[in-house]
Amino acid sequence: MTKLVIGGAQMGAIQKADSREAVVARMIDLLEQAAAKGVEMLVYPELALTTFFPRWYMEDQAEVDQWFEREMPNGATQPLFDRARDLGIAITFGYAELTPEGRHFNTSIVTDRKGEIVGKYRKVHLPGHVEYDPERSHQHLEKRYFEPGDLGFNVWRNEGVIMGMAICNDRRWPETYRVMGLQGVELITLGYNTPSVNSQMGDEGLAKRLFHSKLSLQAGAYQNATFVAGIAKAGVEDGHPLMGGSVIVDPNGFILAEASSEEDELIFAPCDFADCAFGKSTIFDFARHRRIEHYGRITSQTGVIEPA
Amino acid sequence: MTKLVIGGAQMGAIQKADSREAVVARMIDLLEQAAAKGVEMLVYPELALTTFFPRWYMEDQAEVDQWFEREMPNGATQPLFDRARDLGIAITFGYAELTPEGRHFNTSIVTDRKGEIVGKYRKVHLPGHVEYDPERSHQHLEKRYFEPGDLGFNVWRNEGVIMGMAICNDRRWPETYRVMGLQGVELITLGYNTPSVNSQMGDEGLAKRLFHSKLSLQAGAYQNATFVAGIAKAGVEDGHPLMGGSVIVDPNGFILAEASSEEDELIFAPCDFADCAFGKSTIFDFARHRRIEHYGRITSQTGVIEPA
Repeated sequence: MTKLVIGGAQMGAIQKADSREAVVARMIDLLEQAAAKGVEMLVYPELALTTFFPRWYMEDQAEVDQWFEREMPNGATQPLFDRARDLGIAITFGYAELTPEGRHFNTSIVTDRKGEIVGKYRKVHLPGHVEYDPERSHQHLEKRYFEPGDLGFNVWRNEGVIMGMAICNDRRWPETYRVMGLQGVELITLGYNTPSVNSQMGDEGLAKRLFHSKLSLQAGAYQNATFVAGIAKAGVEDGHPLMGGSVIVDPNGFILAEASSEEDELIFAPCDFADCAFGKSTIFDFARHRRIEHYGRITSQTGVIEPA
Repeated sequence: MTKLVIGGAQMGAIQKADSREAVVARMIDLLEQAAAKGVEMLVYPELALTTFFPRWYMEDQAEVDQWFEREMPNGATQPLFDRARDLGIAITFGYAELTPEGRHFNTSIVTDRKGEIVGKYRKVHLPGHVEYDPERSHQHLEKRYFEPGDLGFNVWRNEGVIMGMAICNDRRWPETYRVMGLQGVELITLGYNTPSVNSQMGDEGLAKRLFHSKLSLQAGAYQNATFVAGIAKAGVEDGHPLMGGSVIVDPNGFILAEASSEEDELIFAPCDFADCAFGKSTIFDFARHRRIEHYGRITSQTGVIEPA
């Protein structure tokens, strides 16, 4: 079975004024740190190349589109791909994708250790809202700027591991992990940008929000016997705080490594993917224990239907 | 919105030699304690009336059937129903059910505060195995003695709350909570008998097993914005230890009350079911956020299908 050192490249704040080139330079610095620690696959956050722009209400589509990438790699990110290939580190990061057909997705890609893109994921569970909401302390307009991902929750064999990707709010939905678990997933990588303040419940507090993030990542790992790496963009972006709390979780749901700052910070853990086998062959041997005849509502019904 | 004081009646060990009547006397004692604390609904464990008999390998069906109840209430349990009605406390407990047609289920019922049975659940996720397994440190023969529940995960309006039931191993499966969440569930009650030792990994340890139990209960509560009461039968039954760890969890996934012993022990918490509304109307507003077009494998596929 495969062993890999998995790294998480938590990133601190990216301001509106920061160029892609400046951000990529920080990403390469984290990559160099990772290489020095023997990391073989490095996970960057969601929307790693820019500020978390869905907090800004925009009506001019040209203004929106400045935050999107038309191709990947592109001029700004090629140096990151080049350095990762030279160091033999597989990388995964998120970015805003504008397709040739003019479609907008919240996307992540993953490469192998030779620098080739081997998988793409488009965020399925978009949080937030479409129109300006004066009731909120800040806006969260992902439903305005992106359409829901159209690729589903695929997995790939990459560097000897069955891996899949998810993005941010996907981590709160057990369906995310389960669809990949049903494909034998051994590693789920997930980047996030999560405001430290609940825009609809200001007194919720950072501690509770960090608890919810870890609870979801840990339960998803345990209940599917998979490693999970959840990696934040953190810090204060143009006055808006994002939480840290990046973690690498083992197939028992235990945290192997955890970020301590809200800055650019490398975490890493040696992962033995043989550790997935026990859960997958005993308590979570799906073939023996799942009872799909009683799960029908999960796929036949989107919203709640209360009893009479 | 409804407020109810929810109680958990954790029970200590029940030995093979203990009579139903002796056990019911203990259950009534816990009921009296609950009444003194203002409890309005009291949750007892899985298989509350007997020892956890699936640890014993039996070939004689008459020997097996001695652990089953032919009707509910019956002579042994009628005093519990009577006292609960007199005290105005709704109760729910688990027992082994033998139907008139000769079918065997791991069952729970719930009453209203007038002592009428208003719901029945039959355990869907049976753990363990069918035949004697010499590789295990102890047997776990639920798949031998029960058939999987045939009623699904229903909910009921009971005492002003939308509630549902699950049993023991069901708590590790996110599908359990989600099917009820899609029916607007506000309270899930769940009894368990969980060995303190993993029969297939002796060095796992009690702490890790308690962590897994709470992780699943807390994630299920948070991700469906529902209260969850998970109540143990604990202690050493004829030499075999069962873990405690009974908890009442709020719709944010936080533990409101937790047992400290492995004995008969009452826990309780005042629950304001209005607290379910925030999660259900924001981050877990299923109608706005779920994407069932990407969940297909959850109901179309029981076991794992790995990528090529």
